[in-house]
Amino acid sequence: MPEDKYACVRLISKPQNLLKTIYTACRTCYSADSPLNIFDCESAQDKEKMLKLINRVISSGHYSTIEHVQVSFAISNISRACSHQLVRHRHVSFSQKSQRYVKEKGQFDYLIPDTIERNPELKEKFDNFMSEISKFYLELTENGIPAEDARAVLPNAASTSMVVSMNLRELIHLANLRLCTRAQTEIRILIKRMCEELVKEEEWLKDYLVPKCERLGYCDEDKSCGRKPTKEQIL
Amino acid sequence: MPEDKYACVRLISKPQNLLKTIYTACRTCYSADSPLNIFDCESAQDKEKMLKLINRVISSGHYSTIEHVQVSFAISNISRACSHQLVRHRHVSFSQKSQRYVKEKGQFDYLIPDTIERNPELKEKFDNFMSEISKFYLELTENGIPAEDARAVLPNAASTSMVVSMNLRELIHLANLRLCTRAQTEIRILIKRMCEELVKEEEWLKDYLVPKCERLGYCDEDKSCGRKPTKEQIL
Amino acid sequence: MPEDKYACVRLISKPQNLLKTIYTACRTCYSADSPLNIFDCESAQDKEKMLKLINRVISSGHYSTIEHVQVSFAISNISRACSHQLVRHRHVSFSQKSQRYVKEKGQFDYLIPDTIERNPELKEKFDNFMSEISKFYLELTENGIPAEDARAVLPNAASTSMVVSMNLRELIHLANLRLCTRAQTEIRILIKRMCEELVKEEEWLKDYLVPKCERLGYCDEDKSCGRKPTKEQIL
Amino acid sequence: MPEDKYACVRLISKPQNLLKTIYTACRTCYSADSPLNIFDCESAQDKEKMLKLINRVISSGHYSTIEHVQVSFAISNISRACSHQLVRHRHVSFSQKSQRYVKEKGQFDYLIPDTIERNPELKEKFDNFMSEISKFYLELTENGIPAEDARAVLPNAASTSMVVSMNLRELIHLANLRLCTRAQTEIRILIKRMCEELVKEEEWLKDYLVPKCERLGYCDEDKSCGRKPTKEQIL
Repeated sequence: MPEDKYACVRLISKPQNLLKTIYTACRTCYSADSPLNIFDCESAQDKEKMLKLINRVISSGHYSTIEHVQVSFAISNISRACSHQLVRHRHVSFSQKSQRYVKEKGQFDYLIPDTIERNPELKEKFDNFMSEISKFYLELTENGIPAEDARAVLPNAASTSMVVSMNLRELIHLANLRLCTRAQTEIRILIKRMCEELVKEEEWLKDYLVPKCERLGYCDEDKSCGRKPTKEQIL
Repeated sequence: MPEDKYACVRLISKPQNLLKTIYTACRTCYSADSPLNIFDCESAQDKEKMLKLINRVISSGHYSTIEHVQVSFAISNISRACSHQLVRHRHVSFSQKSQRYVKEKGQFDYLIPDTIERNPELKEKFDNFMSEISKFYLELTENGIPAEDARAVLPNAASTSMVVSMNLRELIHLANLRLCTRAQTEIRILIKRMCEELVKEEEWLKDYLVPKCERLGYCDEDKSCGRKPTKEQIL
Repeated sequence: MPEDKYACVRLISKPQNLLKTIYTACRTCYSADSPLNIFDCESAQDKEKMLKLINRVISSGHYSTIEHVQVSFAISNISRACSHQLVRHRHVSFSQKSQRYVKEKGQFDYLIPDTIERNPELKEKFDNFMSEISKFYLELTENGIPAEDARAVLPNAASTSMVVSMNLRELIHLANLRLCTRAQTEIRILIKRMCEELVKEEEWLKDYLVPKCERLGYCDEDKSCGRKPTKEQIL
Repeated sequence: MPEDKYACVRLISKPQNLLKTIYTACRTCYSADSPLNIFDCESAQDKEKMLKLINRVISSGHYSTIEHVQVSFAISNISRACSHQLVRHRHVSFSQKSQRYVKEKGQFDYLIPDTIERNPELKEKFDNFMSEISKFYLELTENGIPAEDARAVLPNAASTSMVVSMNLRELIHLANLRLCTRAQTEIRILIKRMCEELVKEEEWLKDYLVPKCERLGYCDEDKSCGRKPTKEQIL
């Protein structure tokens, strides 16, 4: 995967007391003690102790406990094709740059798919074509067509930006699905960068932010990319 | 609104026992009787009696009772711009024609925004431009670029089709938001046709499938289209 | 599991055109044809052909296509303990008999857990105790305490009834979790009966309405009940 | 409302960069600038400037922008009756003390409804009754009945505790519904305390965490408590 272009991603928010909140949630289910006491107890000062419990709870599939942590990312330089895929995840919150309300003033930004970029001749034609689209868009808006209608000519390649938020359960689900080689390159890189941004600050999450085959122990697609054997091979 | 183009919509599924299911749900909340008996009781044979209760329950804001009814629509001839708006509704289920897997073989279908269509000169340029895009798309795929990447050049105007399902509570919410004149023409017509398709068979729903100002009693937007006075004016 | 008591369940609604709707959804994703045409095509008359496609799509994990089918059940004779577990499933729609608005007039109905029922001495004490609770409840309401407060004395064993609706994806998820022997007996029997009611009419669903170990190929709990080896044993 | 008992509530987590995240989300929708730049810009240092925009966006009904903020509360000393109401809110995440896994060792904690507490005679009987229930529960567990079955005798009054998390949009929705005098006293006090805990740190939210009549401008219930006139009276 070419990594030097595509999505710009930054983690802009995570909860105060991230670990302590999950730890308190996990212990509340199985304890006679109140969550207010658990939150204040000595163990909740001990990162290793908390992580040991949290890892055990997640490994046993008790994913609801990590819904208590929501993280937010600022994302730019992804294509509208990619954002159309992303907004299909219905447990995520989105604020996206509006093509209805934000009028392009000059050449719009766009993403060139890697397969096209590797072919110099097609790449040049692609760039020229984006320039032609831009000219026609500007002609439309200069003739009084509102941005919400002029955008009809803008391509899937056009760049967009968003703020997205999701809880850890959903981020792990996203990673499981979209880090799989079956996902399209652009969204795979986007999700990879979101995970990397978070793992920089919360290293313990590394083992969960993986393609689904790592979680299942096998590949459940028709054909495996080779990372894991298929379900049929293993069972 | 020009009604002779845009979305093709057909109601393809609704529940057996639609009214009886809502009626049973409404009465279960307030009755010592079991839902199995309510479902079989005499009143559940009497459409007028059921509607009277159901209308009272909905009017009092008890919307969860109509979640028990889900309806499905087959939709075609909407633009990708419109589908990108539609899929933002996270309580709806979608199956959409994939631009990754369905390769365009000739000129792709597209929608011309009404403001452009009304200008003969711009309309002609628009049609020619769509033809140019189509040629470049085909050149890309003929040169081995996979459909999932070639689609980068396809415009927001490109046509798509979907099967969508939602429960009545969500459909009423959709109508409340998207029948408002602030919504973009294309999605307004789409939702209007979905509502009309359903009202043909379930006429009693007519009074609920309305813009939000009808439900609120006032317009809560910055400026009213004139259908209702604003909140400030009325309070 | 003792099957002669616990939940009374009846399927009270499913979609018209159940198979055809899923079939149309599945094909819409991968077809140049419109969903309106697919719905009307010859193949959509051929149950075997439709089932073949649908089974392939579900097996490949494309579960969103079965969200288009929602089913509704009338349920009675479950305990409030059981309903408290059931309402934790957040993709399900519920209409439940209200203890705030429905006042008990005599002995309330209740469920005896099987482990207690098998012990004649404890069973007798349990029945007597329920009778004591009922008397105190009636004393409270006769002294002007509103039902919503008098219910404070009602036990988890008290019976409740509900209308519940969910789409097929969620029902399969429910079955995967709650048919596992780790689930409590009462909810396991409830979900089992819901599945049986549906399979009576839609036999093809039988293979999907199973505990999660059948879907995964292994048990992902700490200890296996023996139905399947654990993940560790198999990998 | 008696305020000296019922729910113990503590805000245990909110996002770092709470205001800045909402501000970035709001501006991303309408700006040519990227969210990464907006987040770093000078205005995002100016609390007053941010609040002005945020209040305008929320007032115009653009609630999706505040989904980016999730808050978590530790709650104890609420009844199971109250928790059964709370878990019906399906956009909230819950971790609740399990009556299956946490065995009561002595007298269980419980909540006395205010209407009963105000009647000394009934209060004494209530307390005695709770003691009787406790004895029978202990007899059951001592006779080998597992906690998950012995709890069948525990009353709705039994105390529970939870960690709950929700985004601001959902918290405002909860407040709108559950601060209404139609809601039962206990959950009204619970939600009131959650709102107070948050407002202590984020004072600007005060005007949104109100009963629905404040948001609508009228009461939409059958009868008004007098705080606002009904919809019929005002329109």
